[in-house]
Amino acid sequence: MASLTAEARGVFVISVTPFREDGSLDLDSLDRVTDFYLEAGADGLTILGMMGEAPKLTQAESLLVIDRVIARAQGKPVVVGVSAPGLAALAELGQEAMARGAAGVMVAPPMSLRTDAQILTYYRQACGFLGADVPVVLQDFPLATTVQISDDLLGRLIDDLPQIVMLKHEDWPGLAKISRLRAAEAKGRRRISVLCGNGGVFLPEEVARGADGAMTGFGFPEMLVQVTELASKGEMDRAQDLFDAYLPLVRYEQQPGVGLAVRKHVLAKRGAIACDAQRQPGAVLDPLARAEVDRLLDRQTKRLKELG
Amino acid sequence: MASLTAEARGVFVISVTPFREDGSLDLDSLDRVTDFYLEAGADGLTILGMMGEAPKLTQAESLLVIDRVIARAQGKPVVVGVSAPGLAALAELGQEAMARGAAGVMVAPPMSLRTDAQILTYYRQACGFLGADVPVVLQDFPLATTVQISDDLLGRLIDDLPQIVMLKHEDWPGLAKISRLRAAEAKGRRRISVLCGNGGVFLPEEVARGADGAMTGFGFPEMLVQVTELASKGEMDRAQDLFDAYLPLVRYEQQPGVGLAVRKHVLAKRGAIACDAQRQPGAVLDPLARAEVDRLLDRQTKRLKELG
Amino acid sequence: MASLTAEARGVFVISVTPFREDGSLDLDSLDRVTDFYLEAGADGLTILGMMGEAPKLTQAESLLVIDRVIARAQGKPVVVGVSAPGLAALAELGQEAMARGAAGVMVAPPMSLRTDAQILTYYRQACGFLGADVPVVLQDFPLATTVQISDDLLGRLIDDLPQIVMLKHEDWPGLAKISRLRAAEAKGRRRISVLCGNGGVFLPEEVARGADGAMTGFGFPEMLVQVTELASKGEMDRAQDLFDAYLPLVRYEQQPGVGLAVRKHVLAKRGAIACDAQRQPGAVLDPLARAEVDRLLDRQTKRLKELG
Amino acid sequence: MASLTAEARGVFVISVTPFREDGSLDLDSLDRVTDFYLEAGADGLTILGMMGEAPKLTQAESLLVIDRVIARAQGKPVVVGVSAPGLAALAELGQEAMARGAAGVMVAPPMSLRTDAQILTYYRQACGFLGADVPVVLQDFPLATTVQISDDLLGRLIDDLPQIVMLKHEDWPGLAKISRLRAAEAKGRRRISVLCGNGGVFLPEEVARGADGAMTGFGFPEMLVQVTELASKGEMDRAQDLFDAYLPLVRYEQQPGVGLAVRKHVLAKRGAIACDAQRQPGAVLDPLARAEVDRLLDRQTKRLKELG
Repeated sequence: MASLTAEARGVFVISVTPFREDGSLDLDSLDRVTDFYLEAGADGLTILGMMGEAPKLTQAESLLVIDRVIARAQGKPVVVGVSAPGLAALAELGQEAMARGAAGVMVAPPMSLRTDAQILTYYRQACGFLGADVPVVLQDFPLATTVQISDDLLGRLIDDLPQIVMLKHEDWPGLAKISRLRAAEAKGRRRISVLCGNGGVFLPEEVARGADGAMTGFGFPEMLVQVTELASKGEMDRAQDLFDAYLPLVRYEQQPGVGLAVRKHVLAKRGAIACDAQRQPGAVLDPLARAEVDRLLDRQTKRLKELG
Repeated sequence: MASLTAEARGVFVISVTPFREDGSLDLDSLDRVTDFYLEAGADGLTILGMMGEAPKLTQAESLLVIDRVIARAQGKPVVVGVSAPGLAALAELGQEAMARGAAGVMVAPPMSLRTDAQILTYYRQACGFLGADVPVVLQDFPLATTVQISDDLLGRLIDDLPQIVMLKHEDWPGLAKISRLRAAEAKGRRRISVLCGNGGVFLPEEVARGADGAMTGFGFPEMLVQVTELASKGEMDRAQDLFDAYLPLVRYEQQPGVGLAVRKHVLAKRGAIACDAQRQPGAVLDPLARAEVDRLLDRQTKRLKELG
Repeated sequence: MASLTAEARGVFVISVTPFREDGSLDLDSLDRVTDFYLEAGADGLTILGMMGEAPKLTQAESLLVIDRVIARAQGKPVVVGVSAPGLAALAELGQEAMARGAAGVMVAPPMSLRTDAQILTYYRQACGFLGADVPVVLQDFPLATTVQISDDLLGRLIDDLPQIVMLKHEDWPGLAKISRLRAAEAKGRRRISVLCGNGGVFLPEEVARGADGAMTGFGFPEMLVQVTELASKGEMDRAQDLFDAYLPLVRYEQQPGVGLAVRKHVLAKRGAIACDAQRQPGAVLDPLARAEVDRLLDRQTKRLKELG
Repeated sequence: MASLTAEARGVFVISVTPFREDGSLDLDSLDRVTDFYLEAGADGLTILGMMGEAPKLTQAESLLVIDRVIARAQGKPVVVGVSAPGLAALAELGQEAMARGAAGVMVAPPMSLRTDAQILTYYRQACGFLGADVPVVLQDFPLATTVQISDDLLGRLIDDLPQIVMLKHEDWPGLAKISRLRAAEAKGRRRISVLCGNGGVFLPEEVARGADGAMTGFGFPEMLVQVTELASKGEMDRAQDLFDAYLPLVRYEQQPGVGLAVRKHVLAKRGAIACDAQRQPGAVLDPLARAEVDRLLDRQTKRLKELG
């Protein structure tokens, strides 16, 4: 499989990891959801991310998931989340993933980092442990990590570490950050790929400001694909019409914790996975929430019909 | 003015504090925006909250704002934010506010608190400093304060401190928390008023789950009023139709930091305040963001017309 | 009174604020403890710091303390802690303090700051609000504030803001930071005064590495004075002999929270204040802790006699 | 090897992990330092703790270290640190360690936990994943984890989870917490073993208040053994005399980050390990710090001679 480069664009869906009711890995569903994402138009996949329940997998299971998804991905690039507090574990999984055909790895900063200098040092070390030939996606997600990366620091990371080829952008608020990044590149800084997270809740504006697409999950990944396409072509009204139809659900699915339960419920309902169970520990969708989601789904179907 | 009680319901708008371009307090605009909120159907007002730029006011200015809004509020209840790291400053402002006719005070926990025991102790002390006759709104906003209040702790606070009459609910995710609070009350716990924050981004579901309304700000406070009314009467589809029309802007205005700039821009555009300036330090709306907001406003107007 | 400059050196004692058992300010004891500090050899005083229970004072009481200490300080420089989350309150108190004769103000960063850029912006704004003629002591105390200031950022703050004349150094570990600061100055950066905090627990090494003295509190401020003097003259063995005799108590008094109770207990025992009470909320010394402190005091007396 | 029980007492030394200059594991030095600890009088060992550079080891290396130390420990109990953000990884290592003869495992709470309910749930899940027959040491170290465990929560953890047999106590301030724990046990709560950390900086007082000893590291582990023994027998003056002689170094070695460099420097100097290198990333002892430590070592030798 080709390595991830700074030219990557489109939608890399953050894949769920399907489990059976008893908590065991459901590899058939993993195949099915991989197909489902690709049929929705995904340009790549990202596995073992936060929403992939990675910390609940043993090392052996992680390798199983990597192998299975890469084999099924029809040559599309697969990015593997390898964030870990220890650099040895991070490098071990990262190198293993690359050896098995991953296109690159994704690294979020550990919660203990504070100063710009600490963050810079951490990424230098992580890149050093991984090896210079491993493409890295920098996950910038302060809401989850508590680590804040300023424009200035982001620039130093890009300057110092050529193997960082992509930003998974989910700072919030983050629109101006994209514009400032692209402005710095216009003045000569190396261009990197920017794919946006946060469930796509600002996707039309993000693409209009220069993002290359999305790297996130959603029960309707086709929305991410279509909105990215339309907004990339400057068809902002059509992009936003479509986006708005999904927004009530995007908003609901973006809730931390319970959001994954919503996503798996939707995917199961759509037949993409057999069962919406999460491995313990995981949030459960209470009956009221399930009814709220189902109400939003009905309204969404109706609204999409109105749009034609 | 009557004191705030646990029976309070409807919409308490979190008021902005208007400034002139030069950073001086604009008291005429404060009158105007007070009228604007009441004309939109507000049942009460909340001033000197986080979105009211309270920490940028001197003590003398704070008292000026309190007097001006209470005088203009046509007898509607005015809640005053008094959060401060020091209990002496908190009590000083709180007692002063009550003496000038406030209906109650709002207290968010300081960022330094961690354990349930620390949080409980803090509210006991704050209530002790304020005096038992001062009605307190507990602001539960972990995203801003980093302080997390569990169901269990919330119950202990309500049991221990009868002067806590209202929860400003902005935990996220927070829908199940409302349901669990109401369930505990159904089993005998003292009922308190629950008004929701977070820019109203879950308002239809929150009211359906038993919230009494909203305590938040938005450039179109009439939406908060109408959605609360419709959802309270069980007209969920009409509530949600209306809500969905505003949701793209709600989402945009809910961004931390830049959100207040959006709100003031909208309020200035609608004539509710003379100038959208924030006192320093404050976020500024770059031209791109301004264009994004204006695009959303146009789409919103169009969508509202479609709905009739 | 002369303004604080970057040439300041010696020991600025962080003063306690004495209260009576009923929680009222004890101004006679404030006079007495001021005399006590000066008799111990203090070169200056710092009031309304974290250990001065500043957040428990009303604004009026803060001004009372400022006036009283400045009047009693025999012309020695008095630094006033003005840290506050809101810049308006910070500037209000700071300007008032300067007008009443303070030598400078001390500003710790609020807990909400994270990135280098945020911290730099905050100090620029704080200095702007205070006015360029107000000398500022930068309090670098990550253990209490959670804000970490790297060498690089410290250099930018010093370069950008000439009114920062002193570092209250209490990063931990922090010895190498002093050496790196002095090394940067040797290469041409503006020299600032460095006074060390943390109860003096590394004072001999800190002075040997180039610190100008201490700005901290301790029940035996004469130790801070003597150790600073001896270490400044290079008499490291005598400095350390003396220091070691006090170290068991330094260690005990350095505990967060309960440390202030220890300090007030010692000061009351030595007659420097009438009563060891803290205003609520405050830690209380349980009988076991009191016995532990008294045991350490006895051992300390004995050890000092041995040293002669 | 016998399983760890709530009756455990004495000193469990937190073992360093020795590396060669090139960063490779030095298993001969691991044998040597194991012998060194046991000769110093250790009652047990704890490996793969924070100060054992555990996050820098691959999974295979961790198992190597476990096997080697258990084989060398002459039947003394070996506790294995298994803290990890993911429960699957935690349980995988924990069960592997037990199968290889560990006496128990140590679990610190992940930084993301905040409320009492979250912490309780986490330990329930961790214990569930490990299995009820695995003895657990609860590491209570807020300075490193940011997670604060109140007396009340500690009681609930002990009540709910019988497999928690030991508290590694390093809350700070923490003396009163020990007293309150023992008081609760005197009223009927199940007694657990309490071994203290924090480099032993409060060891005399901790043992006097009811701690069963120490679980920490120090370049002179014989001090931990002797002070625990003397203080257990009530010989507080002799305990403290000895302790005070080592305190200047204890203080120096207790610094976060650089402390491990100091410890390895001392251990290498004493011949317990061949090389003081840390695997990257690790703090390095600059020449000034090395000189400071050597000065403290000379003074310590002299002072110990004076004591006879």
